[in-house]
Amino acid sequence: MSFCRRECTLLVLDRRQKRNLTQHHGKSRCYYYKDLIVRILVQKFGGSSVKDLACMREVLVKVRQGLEQGNKLVVVLSARAGETNRLLALASEWSNAPDPAECDSLVSTGEQVSTALFAMLLKDNGIKARSLLGFQAPIITDDEHGKARISSFDEEHLLELLEEYDVLVMAGFQGVTRDRRITTLGRGGSDTSAVAVAAALGAHCCEIYTDVDGVYTTDPNLCSTARKLDRISYDEMLEMASMGSKVLEIRSVEFAKKYKVPVHVRSTFTNTPGTVLTQEDSKMENVLVSGIAYDKDQALITLCAVPDRPGVSAGIFGPLDQAKITVDMIVQNPSQGGVTDMTFTVSRKDLQKAMAVVEASREKFGAREILYNSNVCKVSVIGVGMRNHSGVASLAFDALYRENINILMISTSEIKISCLIEEKYTELAVRTLHDAFELDKIGA
Amino acid sequence: MSFCRRECTLLVLDRRQKRNLTQHHGKSRCYYYKDLIVRILVQKFGGSSVKDLACMREVLVKVRQGLEQGNKLVVVLSARAGETNRLLALASEWSNAPDPAECDSLVSTGEQVSTALFAMLLKDNGIKARSLLGFQAPIITDDEHGKARISSFDEEHLLELLEEYDVLVMAGFQGVTRDRRITTLGRGGSDTSAVAVAAALGAHCCEIYTDVDGVYTTDPNLCSTARKLDRISYDEMLEMASMGSKVLEIRSVEFAKKYKVPVHVRSTFTNTPGTVLTQEDSKMENVLVSGIAYDKDQALITLCAVPDRPGVSAGIFGPLDQAKITVDMIVQNPSQGGVTDMTFTVSRKDLQKAMAVVEASREKFGAREILYNSNVCKVSVIGVGMRNHSGVASLAFDALYRENINILMISTSEIKISCLIEEKYTELAVRTLHDAFELDKIGA
Repeated sequence: MSFCRRECTLLVLDRRQKRNLTQHHGKSRCYYYKDLIVRILVQKFGGSSVKDLACMREVLVKVRQGLEQGNKLVVVLSARAGETNRLLALASEWSNAPDPAECDSLVSTGEQVSTALFAMLLKDNGIKARSLLGFQAPIITDDEHGKARISSFDEEHLLELLEEYDVLVMAGFQGVTRDRRITTLGRGGSDTSAVAVAAALGAHCCEIYTDVDGVYTTDPNLCSTARKLDRISYDEMLEMASMGSKVLEIRSVEFAKKYKVPVHVRSTFTNTPGTVLTQEDSKMENVLVSGIAYDKDQALITLCAVPDRPGVSAGIFGPLDQAKITVDMIVQNPSQGGVTDMTFTVSRKDLQKAMAVVEASREKFGAREILYNSNVCKVSVIGVGMRNHSGVASLAFDALYRENINILMISTSEIKISCLIEEKYTELAVRTLHDAFELDKIGA
Repeated sequence: MSFCRRECTLLVLDRRQKRNLTQHHGKSRCYYYKDLIVRILVQKFGGSSVKDLACMREVLVKVRQGLEQGNKLVVVLSARAGETNRLLALASEWSNAPDPAECDSLVSTGEQVSTALFAMLLKDNGIKARSLLGFQAPIITDDEHGKARISSFDEEHLLELLEEYDVLVMAGFQGVTRDRRITTLGRGGSDTSAVAVAAALGAHCCEIYTDVDGVYTTDPNLCSTARKLDRISYDEMLEMASMGSKVLEIRSVEFAKKYKVPVHVRSTFTNTPGTVLTQEDSKMENVLVSGIAYDKDQALITLCAVPDRPGVSAGIFGPLDQAKITVDMIVQNPSQGGVTDMTFTVSRKDLQKAMAVVEASREKFGAREILYNSNVCKVSVIGVGMRNHSGVASLAFDALYRENINILMISTSEIKISCLIEEKYTELAVRTLHDAFELDKIGA
């Protein structure tokens, strides 16, 4: 593409020069050649964006736009929609407990196919491009197959490739161990791949293209007045992601926060700006609350009348931890008559296992009875503004009270207040809180 | 698997010791540990042998047999039947002329899937196994994407892996360039992968499992008395393969010949021995003719009344060579009145292109007319015994004459006599020659 050749082929790769790079544009690096500046942009497209040729042509438009702005691009792709599930189904047909290393080798073919096809399309359109697999980059990970963590990038190799190519079409989700076994980063791992490569190369932005057009103040399916956020802080996004907002994989947000990578979540199929994830700034702090999240994957367990003496808490939660059950909210009531009620929540899929562990503890410590309830939901109010403002909690509790929604448990963090409620009130609670904090209004 | 652990885990991998390996069992190497001998067996299974779980279970039986004989195994697999074509169709959907490097990355996923699935199956059956892709072995090739040639193996790495694993499930057909791009070896390349790894490791045998049970004296579909050969020389097999016998890919036979790898062609679905490819021996030389091959991919072109002067032949065949058209048989009649007829054959798919090239030459040299005929077939009599016996040609011509089959062209090599005939006589000619040389009789 001649329009970008002039600037883009000029990427500096002299190793000495590269080590003397100057920091510009916040935390992003610029690569100099003579008096020209070349910047690197990372774009990530999910499975629905690359599912067929027609969709890939939309992706091509975004890539052209990136090139026209004078960037060199790393385009991170997921497997085509449905492909990973097809491959996992194949593994299940072959084995009841597929070997994790072999499963990774199998499943990683999904991204290998999508990157090869998209690189073909780019080349046919006159763009200097090639595909890049985990072992080729290489993206070195640990050997936790199925949920590997990236340990290092060969940044210099990537920069050398970007001297030769204008676009590297990188397979998301996959990496390779030091002894050349293929690994995968777990579900949603392509987001992590994209943010990690953006961090390694000092990209000025990591654009995450998806089928939604940004991060909303709450789930638009539950609340018609939900509004798209222009900006959100990493911490708020972490709380939103961990609450079950499916826009971004949580590890990618942690990565972005750690390396201060500006992430722009936007839609493949429109041209409107999405939501930018950045560091907190004073403008954000003026906003009391950014969003309302909810999480239905909650089950409540109560141990009634547990003896209130040292070591009991450790005796209850230690075995749960050993059984790899994650406990979310915990409440212990003040002791009455030497006994207390201990209440906590776990993921619904862990409920049965957790009950078995707790039953064993009961025999050891004694407890009158054990109650459970999986018809509960956690609703959370999130905002960095809470750090400097009081009254958020009482406003939230009051709003729920006025709708007669009983709060079963409460937990708080610096930027979040969560209430466990009965599941049937979920939609009402979300809408009530969204209204109470006037999130439908711009600059609320 | 305890039955083989005793011997198989004892593979020597001390590098000094390995370099002092003694040659045993013909050309195959043995690996010593203390007083025990461990041998390496290579097994290759084609796409129809691994097409589904049921077929792979048959492959598992063969692998177990190999282990029970005290071998360490390298099992080379093709993609599951239909998979390579599915991927190529995808490439064609995306591009009219898919980039060869990207096409290799795409198509190589076929073997990646089959090896991962089979390795899962082996592990589930208690066998110490892992998959091994081209880049993992690594199998280094040149960068002729789509038809790459193997340049080197990391034999020491493979032997190290064979210390840890009893079976390496190796992806056939694929390799990797020095700068880590995936390559493929061309159609049938898995045979070449298998023979090459057998040569590199000094395997005592390379078993090629297929859906036929060996190499026959001729095509059993044409001739009901066709007989399976117990043994065949590399040279004879090369002539059979190049004549269109689809049992083994020709480059794998060249490789086997060069490195003297004993190859055993046999069926996945029976237990009967197949055909062994070996070096010639005196017993083979006593057999006059080993087989009758035919090749319908022939088209005849005749330049009538070409001026018979120096440089004309070069002027005709030079441009054909430049157009990458392979010319097979060539006949030039003795000159009459300063002009001659020049006749040659090309592959049918090249006929149109060849006619265009020859028309251009005609204008330069002059020729009365150009004739062509694509309804022809080449029938060949093959046998190393011909080297020391006369009368084979006259016996063949006489047999064809008695059936009134007209011979259009003749060409001969040391171990082959080929006749071009009209295509409609193909079946009759094959049966006639098969009878004439009594190939239905054992030890004929």
